Amino acid sequence: MLPIDDSPIVRDGKSLILAMDHGLEHGPTDFEEVPEKLDPSTVFDTATHDAVTAMAVQKGIAEGYYPSYGDDVNLLAKVNGTSNLWMGEYDSAVNWSVDYAAEIGADAVGFTLYGGSNHEVEMAEEFRDVQEAAREHDLPVVMWSYPRGQGLKNDTKPEVISYATRLGLELGADIAKVKYPGSPDAMEHACKSAGDMKVVMSGGSKTSDYEFLSTVEAAISAGAKGLAVGRNVWQREDPTRILDALEKVIFEEETADAALEATE
Amino acid sequence: MLPIDDSPIVRDGKSLILAMDHGLEHGPTDFEEVPEKLDPSTVFDTATHDAVTAMAVQKGIAEGYYPSYGDDVNLLAKVNGTSNLWMGEYDSAVNWSVDYAAEIGADAVGFTLYGGSNHEVEMAEEFRDVQEAAREHDLPVVMWSYPRGQGLKNDTKPEVISYATRLGLELGADIAKVKYPGSPDAMEHACKSAGDMKVVMSGGSKTSDYEFLSTVEAAISAGAKGLAVGRNVWQREDPTRILDALEKVIFEEETADAALEATE
Amino acid sequence: MLPIDDSPIVRDGKSLILAMDHGLEHGPTDFEEVPEKLDPSTVFDTATHDAVTAMAVQKGIAEGYYPSYGDDVNLLAKVNGTSNLWMGEYDSAVNWSVDYAAEIGADAVGFTLYGGSNHEVEMAEEFRDVQEAAREHDLPVVMWSYPRGQGLKNDTKPEVISYATRLGLELGADIAKVKYPGSPDAMEHACKSAGDMKVVMSGGSKTSDYEFLSTVEAAISAGAKGLAVGRNVWQREDPTRILDALEKVIFEEETADAALEATE
Amino acid sequence: MLPIDDSPIVRDGKSLILAMDHGLEHGPTDFEEVPEKLDPSTVFDTATHDAVTAMAVQKGIAEGYYPSYGDDVNLLAKVNGTSNLWMGEYDSAVNWSVDYAAEIGADAVGFTLYGGSNHEVEMAEEFRDVQEAAREHDLPVVMWSYPRGQGLKNDTKPEVISYATRLGLELGADIAKVKYPGSPDAMEHACKSAGDMKVVMSGGSKTSDYEFLSTVEAAISAGAKGLAVGRNVWQREDPTRILDALEKVIFEEETADAALEATE
Amino acid sequence: MLPIDDSPIVRDGKSLILAMDHGLEHGPTDFEEVPEKLDPSTVFDTATHDAVTAMAVQKGIAEGYYPSYGDDVNLLAKVNGTSNLWMGEYDSAVNWSVDYAAEIGADAVGFTLYGGSNHEVEMAEEFRDVQEAAREHDLPVVMWSYPRGQGLKNDTKPEVISYATRLGLELGADIAKVKYPGSPDAMEHACKSAGDMKVVMSGGSKTSDYEFLSTVEAAISAGAKGLAVGRNVWQREDPTRILDALEKVIFEEETADAALEATE
Repeated sequence: MLPIDDSPIVRDGKSLILAMDHGLEHGPTDFEEVPEKLDPSTVFDTATHDAVTAMAVQKGIAEGYYPSYGDDVNLLAKVNGTSNLWMGEYDSAVNWSVDYAAEIGADAVGFTLYGGSNHEVEMAEEFRDVQEAAREHDLPVVMWSYPRGQGLKNDTKPEVISYATRLGLELGADIAKVKYPGSPDAMEHACKSAGDMKVVMSGGSKTSDYEFLSTVEAAISAGAKGLAVGRNVWQREDPTRILDALEKVIFEEETADAALEATE
Repeated sequence: MLPIDDSPIVRDGKSLILAMDHGLEHGPTDFEEVPEKLDPSTVFDTATHDAVTAMAVQKGIAEGYYPSYGDDVNLLAKVNGTSNLWMGEYDSAVNWSVDYAAEIGADAVGFTLYGGSNHEVEMAEEFRDVQEAAREHDLPVVMWSYPRGQGLKNDTKPEVISYATRLGLELGADIAKVKYPGSPDAMEHACKSAGDMKVVMSGGSKTSDYEFLSTVEAAISAGAKGLAVGRNVWQREDPTRILDALEKVIFEEETADAALEATE
Repeated sequence: MLPIDDSPIVRDGKSLILAMDHGLEHGPTDFEEVPEKLDPSTVFDTATHDAVTAMAVQKGIAEGYYPSYGDDVNLLAKVNGTSNLWMGEYDSAVNWSVDYAAEIGADAVGFTLYGGSNHEVEMAEEFRDVQEAAREHDLPVVMWSYPRGQGLKNDTKPEVISYATRLGLELGADIAKVKYPGSPDAMEHACKSAGDMKVVMSGGSKTSDYEFLSTVEAAISAGAKGLAVGRNVWQREDPTRILDALEKVIFEEETADAALEATE
Repeated sequence: MLPIDDSPIVRDGKSLILAMDHGLEHGPTDFEEVPEKLDPSTVFDTATHDAVTAMAVQKGIAEGYYPSYGDDVNLLAKVNGTSNLWMGEYDSAVNWSVDYAAEIGADAVGFTLYGGSNHEVEMAEEFRDVQEAAREHDLPVVMWSYPRGQGLKNDTKPEVISYATRLGLELGADIAKVKYPGSPDAMEHACKSAGDMKVVMSGGSKTSDYEFLSTVEAAISAGAKGLAVGRNVWQREDPTRILDALEKVIFEEETADAALEATE
Repeated sequence: MLPIDDSPIVRDGKSLILAMDHGLEHGPTDFEEVPEKLDPSTVFDTATHDAVTAMAVQKGIAEGYYPSYGDDVNLLAKVNGTSNLWMGEYDSAVNWSVDYAAEIGADAVGFTLYGGSNHEVEMAEEFRDVQEAAREHDLPVVMWSYPRGQGLKNDTKPEVISYATRLGLELGADIAKVKYPGSPDAMEHACKSAGDMKVVMSGGSKTSDYEFLSTVEAAISAGAKGLAVGRNVWQREDPTRILDALEKVIFEEETADAALEATE
């Protein structure tokens, strides 16, 4: 972990990362209700919102669309990822070299670590290479820290999420993205387990405006330094309104209620 | 994905790729009815047709025959491939380095990804290396995106083909070659899932002139940007005539009927 | 093994290594009784004690906290390690390159070898690379020599511990950290098996002051050249007092009784 | 495949390769009847015969004996090979780098590919590296193309041998060495499947003079461009006589009968 | 195989290698009867005997002790080896790079090949790298050629030992160390199978003076070019006396009886 408050992906110590790698991880099915979002431009347009400090995409989408948004969007190069079509213990492919990500203009890199997978050792060594290459390019490193595998029945248990944030700290991430562990106390413990490293909450699958915002509010109060979100933004009819509200909850530390009211 | 409309393998935004790597993938059995085509010169001769924007072959055939056709044929270096003699989960060998393909004069590179294979992670990482090396040589990258593996019973289901084109877009291909998913609607969805990346239909095993051309017509109407075809051209008695017809369907967007009539 | 008596991590021929990589190896659970220690600064503060010749941490913690302690603490870069979340034969990930450890200011490197694991061959080859890279940077190498695996029922048996120290000597460590084999005679044999290479006792899980110090006393009398300890120091309410006592037992070769009395 | 008619290992478009790597592949048992041939000099002496265009040996034998025969023998560096002592699916070790083979004076390199083995993908990738390194040194590449593995019950079936020669062509060999497929027609098909690439017949285990020579005659008539032979030459009492006869059958295209008569 | 008669590890065409890597391969248990030999200096002292042409040790012991013996002992860097604590098919770790061995002053390198192990292919490829690196440093290569594995019930059968020496010759060793195959005839065949490459007998576990020396005598008469011995020298009360005797048997080709008498 290095100090990254001066990085473009951080605003007032916090980050709001808009992620759109679902086409790789889940396939086009995630776009079923919002087929127009299959066109990445639509999500890049959303990412120009002031609240968004970075947009996370895979290499091919960055190559094709980022050149048109370089002035308005910060690029988080998600360097690994895989489809859900195959079978076996959790693993992910490193699809993008850090050198090439930097060449395309990345402001940060992202990497999924399945701690607890029987491929954890191999993935951690891939993370080492990515992290150290990122250091050479002065790029912050965001770890999607998602423990899952043969031995893990429940991947949102408080002790699992606290272990997840700690893995980020120990292995050299600058931000760890984790699932909400179910309660403010558990989130607070997870943030404390990360020492001075920033923790951001993972947005997860789409929920109601209130449910979503109040979980974000709870996470921020518990010490989270932001949010990494995909479906809960771009699967909505009006992504701008939810981003307006998220801006208030995350950066202005307003309540979910106040944020919703203000953005009605 | 990068803009490739200025590439030699693209004509008016579309491509017609003549593939002849069947000797590796299926063995000489594919030439049983047309034994004279075992001589690669015969297929290279066919590839000099104006409709063909690139010919896809493996390294050994490129080394031996491309020097005589360099002025008349664009070379698509198919860099991986394997025989069907062995047993086990789908995989493919990288038989050709991109550097050497460029040295021989390749205008583009091709790579098969078996998304859904339990070797997908490894193949995706091999694709990364090929794709990034191709970028250094300014060569377009064509992905043979063929989901298949232990967990995939039906590899032409609409959602599988849409996932296949999306894999091409996310991972950095410039063109994805996929099987026809059975209906124009499904093909349209597959093309939309690819964003701005070009999708070409895979020719498949030999069918009648009309059946073949009308499927191509449907694919083009649905948004496909061309065709990659082998057996449906060079297994025919008169490859020139079917190429004449394909030229009309693909580049002039005529109907199968009109094209057949015009080339009788 | 090279002479390391002039190294900053050695004082009068002995070492006291304070280790804090438990967040990676065991997770936050090791901090349950001392939650304030989740903040690595607290343990770095402890490591400024004169008795501590080096502090062993993983990369991320070194990056984040060592810059503030560079003048007062010697850094032992623990370059491999893994979580306890996954299943299978013992193995560990190399999370840190020696080059980068040196860049951050490491005074030594540490590496866990699970001799007896069915991954021993692979781990020994990773050790080779780490050890030879450390030689290029003139950094002493500490081996956490912990035989364990499918074929080892009891990993503190005298012959196992003597084999563990010998592995350190044969493979090129400068210090081997091993568990106490249960008796002074066994410890003496383990030290003799190491030839001129230094052996330090592993602190293990927290025990009473007297039990802990008298085991250290026995180890030192038997020829051990120090201690590598984590929980038995920083899980205590007053780490300074136990370090005062350890200083007497290790460097002044006092008895546990005398050391306890003097530090009451 | 590149044109190699100007290579020293080719004479009038054909090759006669004397192979002596049986000590590695089969062990000393192949020398039981001719124990004096355990001394590689004896076989190198045989290789000085005008009919022999290259001698194929492993690295150690080339290092030790080739320096004395450099003026009279062309060296084919057989870069992979393995013993028959171990168990499991067919595979072979790459025992010799092409760079070092070139340094020793190799005129060509040889590589065994077990197409159809479950290790085919890995072996093909090793072949890629060897083939491309050979290109840098302008050395022809001979593939021992021997399909065998879990899924292949009969490795001399006509379709298997035709697939074997095609693998050589597609993957970039200049010569493929295959077993005789049992009939002139099958051999002719195998040669046609190879396009312009040369096919040489594998000599196999020792048979009678007539049986051996007439099979060679049939192969040459069917389009084979020579022979790669070991035991059928050096296990004979008079290797010179059989080479005299082979010279007539292969290079002068005489019948087996005529060749035998002429060399009586 | 290269000519190595001018190498410091050869005297009058023969070698006597004193090996002491048993602490790694077998653990301290091999020193149970001679605990003072746990100190490597004691064995290095023994190696200063004129009869010893090289001492074989692992990296750590070379680093720690060879600097004091550089004038009096020739160093054979044993670059692979492993403990006997783990389970599974035979394999060995490459613990030492040849570059670093050369830097420390090695006069030769040693490598164990378990021909017949299901890891043979991988080990042979590691041997390739070691052998070719040794060539760059002009260091002779000694192969501990020990066929063993799932398919080998008896690893001292004559045909196995002859295969073992042949593997050394074919793969590029300069000396192969093998077990005594039980009879002078079998040893003679093993030496003939090695062509001009030197074969040395492996000393094995401790036996009586007469039994040991007469086996060495038989091996030398059969064509062996020396001995590589550990326990049969340094487990003895008086290693000097047995070395005096070995010098007579090996270099002066005296009988065991005469040598024993002369050294009484």
